[in-house]
Parts: sequence; C-alpha cells; structure tokens
Amino acid sequence: RLRADLDALNEIGRTPDGLFRVAWSPAYRVGLDWLYGRFAAAGLDADEDAATNIWGWWGNHDAPALLLGSHTDTVPNGGTYDGAYGVLAALEVVRTLRDAAIALPFPLAVVAWADEEGAHFGTGFFGSAAFVGQPITDKYIALAGDDARRLLMNSGADLARLDAVAARRADIGAYLELHIEQGPRLEAAGVPFGVVSGIFGIERYAYTLTGAPAHAGTTPFAQRRDAGLGMARAMLALREIAQVAPGEPGAPSELVATVGRLAITPDVPNIIPGTATFTAEFRGTDAAALAAAHAAFTAQLDTICAEERLTWTKRPVLVTPPTPMHPAMRHAVTVGCTAVGVTPLMLPSGAGHDAGILAPLLPAGMLFVPSCGGISHSPDEYTDDESLALGANALLQTVLALAESGLPTMTTGERR
Amino acid sequence: RLRADLDALNEIGRTPDGLFRVAWSPAYRVGLDWLYGRFAAAGLDADEDAATNIWGWWGNHDAPALLLGSHTDTVPNGGTYDGAYGVLAALEVVRTLRDAAIALPFPLAVVAWADEEGAHFGTGFFGSAAFVGQPITDKYIALAGDDARRLLMNSGADLARLDAVAARRADIGAYLELHIEQGPRLEAAGVPFGVVSGIFGIERYAYTLTGAPAHAGTTPFAQRRDAGLGMARAMLALREIAQVAPGEPGAPSELVATVGRLAITPDVPNIIPGTATFTAEFRGTDAAALAAAHAAFTAQLDTICAEERLTWTKRPVLVTPPTPMHPAMRHAVTVGCTAVGVTPLMLPSGAGHDAGILAPLLPAGMLFVPSCGGISHSPDEYTDDESLALGANALLQTVLALAESGLPTMTTGERR
Repeated sequence: RLRADLDALNEIGRTPDGLFRVAWSPAYRVGLDWLYGRFAAAGLDADEDAATNIWGWWGNHDAPALLLGSHTDTVPNGGTYDGAYGVLAALEVVRTLRDAAIALPFPLAVVAWADEEGAHFGTGFFGSAAFVGQPITDKYIALAGDDARRLLMNSGADLARLDAVAARRADIGAYLELHIEQGPRLEAAGVPFGVVSGIFGIERYAYTLTGAPAHAGTTPFAQRRDAGLGMARAMLALREIAQVAPGEPGAPSELVATVGRLAITPDVPNIIPGTATFTAEFRGTDAAALAAAHAAFTAQLDTICAEERLTWTKRPVLVTPPTPMHPAMRHAVTVGCTAVGVTPLMLPSGAGHDAGILAPLLPAGMLFVPSCGGISHSPDEYTDDESLALGANALLQTVLALAESGLPTMTTGERR
Repeated sequence: RLRADLDALNEIGRTPDGLFRVAWSPAYRVGLDWLYGRFAAAGLDADEDAATNIWGWWGNHDAPALLLGSHTDTVPNGGTYDGAYGVLAALEVVRTLRDAAIALPFPLAVVAWADEEGAHFGTGFFGSAAFVGQPITDKYIALAGDDARRLLMNSGADLARLDAVAARRADIGAYLELHIEQGPRLEAAGVPFGVVSGIFGIERYAYTLTGAPAHAGTTPFAQRRDAGLGMARAMLALREIAQVAPGEPGAPSELVATVGRLAITPDVPNIIPGTATFTAEFRGTDAAALAAAHAAFTAQLDTICAEERLTWTKRPVLVTPPTPMHPAMRHAVTVGCTAVGVTPLMLPSGAGHDAGILAPLLPAGMLFVPSCGGISHSPDEYTDDESLALGANALLQTVLALAESGLPTMTTGERR
C-alpha cells in the first residue's frame, strides 16, 4: 500500500531527468491536491491551511495531537523518497492503526509541510516556519519581492491568514518525522535505522582574500601576493580544524566543513589571482564546537594572510544554531526501532528538516532509514522496499511507545 | 625627441581606461600609418610588408642588417611603454647615428612587428612568426576561422604573400630589442638595466580532478571525494616544486609557477565539489628544470588523488620551450650598458617577446629597463623619462659595441 502511494505521487512531476515537484510549481500543486484526496480516502479529516500545508486528522482535538509528517516538494531533478516517503509512511501508520482499531491516548495528525526545500526562492521551510510563527513571508518577499507574493498566492497560500497556521500549534503536542538519511553513514555502518540526535547548525560565511594581480611570468615568488594560494591554504586549514575538533567525550569530531563555492579574479591563466572569494562552512550539533571551529578558522586566516601578504574580509551567508531533538522523543524512536528488532545508530542530521524548525518549540524526534550510496537530491536517490517497510513499522512502533509513555512536554524555559 | 614621439603615438588609441591599440583595430592601423610616416620623415627607407610589419631601413642591403625593434600593438586598456618604447627608441638610435654621421659596418633597420600581444584572437607574434616562416595564419584561422582572415586582410595584411616576409630574413644578420621589464626585479634590485638571459619556456596544462559531488551536511569526511581539496593541495604542491627546483649552480630556483584559472562544479555552497578544473603552469629558462618540475607535479597529483580518492586528467594549453638569447648579443648588451656607466643585472624574461620568436634562427638579444612596481598591461604601466633616455643610450652603445665586434652568426647546427 505504501509502495503504491509512493508510485502514484511520484508520477506527478516525473521528467526524464528526475522528479520536478519544486514548491509553487503546477506539479507541486497537483501533488498537494492528490495528497488531500488520499488523506480523505483514508478516512482522515483532511484540510489545507493558509500556508498550503496539507493536514489529515484522526481523532478529535480534545488533547494535543502527535503529529507525523514531512514534505512533498522536491529540488529540481530530485529523487522520489526525500520528503514523500515520510508523509506517506505517516499516512500508512495511521491507516494501520485504524485498520487494527488500536486506540491511542492522543489524537494523531499527518502533515505535508509546504516548500521544505526552498528550491524556487533559495529559502525554504515555508510551511513549518509559518506553523511556528516565524515571519517567513517577509523572508520570501525580501528575496523575490512581489513575485514571491504572486506565486505563493497562485499556489493557494493565503498570506494574510498565516496567523491561523501558527494558531494550530495549540492542537499539537509533539512531532515525529521519518526521512531518508541523505547521507552514507547508516549504509556504511550496516544499520537500518538512525535515531537523529539533532540537526546540524551551520556557520557559513563568504570570504574574500585580496592580494594583487600580477604577470605570471615576470613576477618572482617573493613579490607575489597570490590570493589563490591563500584560498588553497584556507581550504586545507578548514578541513584540518573540523577533523581535530573535539566530539562527544572520547568520540571523534562530528564537525564537517566544506568549501562549496569559489572563484578567483581575473581568472586568466597567465595572471596571478588578485582576489579569491569562497564560501566556507562548518556544521555540527554542538554550538560551542561550532563557535570554536569558526574562531580557529579566522585565526588561521589571519596567519595565512599575513604570510601570503593578503587581506581578508567575511560576511555571513547562513548561520543557524544546532537543534537537538527532544530526549524523550529520541528515546521513543529508539524503543520503536528496538521493537522491530533493530538497535539503531544515534547520529546527527547534516541536512535541515522541518523537525528542526519545530524542535525549539515542540518536542520533536526523527527517524532515518538508509540512503543507497548516501545519494540524495538526485534521480539516483534510492532506498529499497524492505528498508521503507521496516521504517514505517518502526514509526508505528514509536507511536505505540509514545502511547505507552505519554507525549513529552516542554516547559517555557526549554523553548527557544 | 623620443618623449615627443611616444606622446604622439600614444594619442592614437587613447581611452579613459588606458590605451586601446589592439592589433587589427582601427586605432592599430592608424598607429602603423603614423609610424610609417615617422620612419620616412627620419630619412629611413620605410615600407610595410605583407604581414603589416612596418620597416625603416638605413643603409643599403649589401650586407645582413642589424635589426632593432619591438611592436606598437597593445592589450585592451594597456600601457604606453610596452612595445612602443622599443620601436621609438630604435628610431631614435638610428636618427642619432645619422645626425652624428657615424658609419657602421652593417646596415641598420627598425621594425614594428605586427600583433605581438595576440589580444584579439588569443594568440600573437603574427609579424615575427611570419618573418621566421611559421604557418601563423593557420593558427589564427584555427582560432577564429574566416573572421581572422577577413580582419587581417581589412588591416592591410596580404595573407597570400607572407612568403615574401619570410624572405626578408636573408637581409637580417641579428636582432636587438629594448623593452620595459614588465616585472619588478630591476626596480627591487635598484639596477637600471637588465640583460635578458633568455625567454621563459612555458609548460601550461589544464587539469581536471574528478571526485563525487555530495551533500555538505550529510557526508562525513571519510566518505568524501572532494575535488576542491585536491585542487587546493595541487596548488600548494605546484609552488613548492617550483621553489625547490635547482637553479644555476649555487643559485636559487628561477622557476615560477602559477594557477591562474580555476573552477569547481557544481559550485554551490552546500555541495561538496565533484570536479575541479584549473590551469597550472611552470615557466623557466632551463628546459630540463621545466620538464623535471612538470614530472614532479604530475607525480604529486597521483599521490594527492590517491589520498583524496580522485582521478585526474590533463591537456596541454601552452607548451613552449625556453629560448636563450645569443651569448654574443648578451655580451654586446652588457658592453652597451657598461658604456653608459651601469653594471646591468642578467635576468630571464618571464614574458614572451618577438625576440624569442626570432632567437631560434637569428642571433637575438634584449635589454630591459625597469617597470615601476612591475606593473604592465595596465594604464598604470610607468617608466620614468630618465630611465627611458638611459635605455635608448644603452641601445645606441650596444649598436656601437656590435659595430666594434661585428654581428655574430649562427651555424645551421645552432639553429632550431
């Protein structure tokens, strides 16, 4: 049943180059309507809020619900599992509980969050951000002006009524998201489940190193101020710093660091580069380790630039704090995995998820299944049917574990 | 008189952003006509050959002439000394000898070579290459097709008659070129003259390193195949190899090496680079040292790529052998400098010159004057009037030294 749902949804937006169900596109809208119909057909109380989040409720609203969900939008030329699997597995869990006539001490709800990927405007998490009350529309409009407003409205969003989306928070007690890992750790470890410890924070800055362009033939090394070589040293320093950063006591560093974009000027074979610009980021779940790594990197830049006779500047591109998953939710996910006979791996999520948006305000937890080759955001994204079914079962068992323990709560002091 | 000539020529093609007298442009053609007129006005036998080289002869053709010259074309937004100074100083030398009624044992000729810079088509030395009989038209047509043919013809070149240009070689015994250094060595050493030992050979290749693009957040270091980091290591290895390369016995390396152009894909901040492409070049006057450096670099690439789990390929972009200046011409230039009271510095030319094109077939020598800050190919290019005058005097004294010693000859075995 889950496989059939996935196949049906992934006919929508299918292209020869992969799935194109980018948020706010016609195919995305068709997908939302299809999902609304599936929720209704499963006997859920289906509705769509002002942010175009699609909801399916099971049970009345007399107590805070356990919310299961993910998203249905994709990146351009995306894969068929990222997001869609989490939504449809959640639907499958509710159907299974209903078929088995299992009563829960809390209502259940399924959600497909709007525009998680942010592939159209360059920023995402529209639906979950609206739910937690962030001024997400302003961010979209800042990036794309009235085009954003127009496109969102055309896709069914009602920007004047996003307050009503945030008001739904009163109905939700906790959030649980099943997702493919989008990384290679589970596959490499040979473990079918990951319990997400937290979502990586990101310290991403754009750096500019400035030296002096000069003739590649006539300028001896002693007189060069080669910004390209400064960048090369900085790239290696970045990795070195991330690799030696301390992890959990006794564990190796979990920080990762990447230079993903770079350029030099004038970018001509016979001229020494006068400037080099690049983005460099650290990611990790420990805010102190992130801050220390960033400080170590800028100190290294000072040294490198002094030695290479360069100057440097930086500007923030993306700086988000790490977001731990709620301990009780992590525990419930672990119990759920164990119930299907698997001891899961605890691991951080290097990618962002809607669960990370909700986690500062609501108890949130996440469960990963392996991604073949760690590949994601690609038509080659793949997880085998056995893993998909096992993951849906573990999600079901996690719901039952929470039925046993009761939904955790967060005090005002724990919220951020 | 030299200053007035320079100022007059550099009115032609002057723009607010520097000099634009790029070969085959209207301003370039106006400059050639102006020069023809100056040669004629100085009492020289002026003519233009089929390659649009402008010649001024003094004396009959009964013996091989000493040829003095350089070029009048510029790069876009170029400076006012590169090339023009050498041509007009040569004219000044001939005028001075004529005014002083000094008889020489050989005829003198002045030449402005066509399209030395190659700024329009990306390849240059059109006039001097035609003179030495290279199939230079084929190279231009390979780059730009019939556009090249059309533009050259429109500027006055007669591509069907380039053989006649090469036939002039019988009239020339040796070649002497005065030029600004285009580098910072003379200024740094506080020496007003450089005797060029030879022209750097270039080993420039374009390299592609291939790894695998992957998510910057979800991919641990152990599973990365980051082509950007491979490139960073290669850039540092390149410099290291050039710096430790042996120079003349007891002298430090004279090799220089540069990565001037680079790019990664997909060039997105949150994706690990899957490929990196860059040009890397070595330059030097010792062919064996160049070959050894290139071999050391490719060996380093093997090591780096094995460690970073990448593959690499290369293709040649520009590979030219080093070209030594003729020992007798170097000696004459040294004598010329000494005659004006200066002990010159012997140094290689990191930039290419028409003298390098002629040197395999004719005894050739070069004299450099300092470039302020080493700056060239820029409106900021500058050499003070005193240095310009001193350089023209040293050129005159070099001619007199050759008059004393006689023009050197090259045996068939010495030609390449």
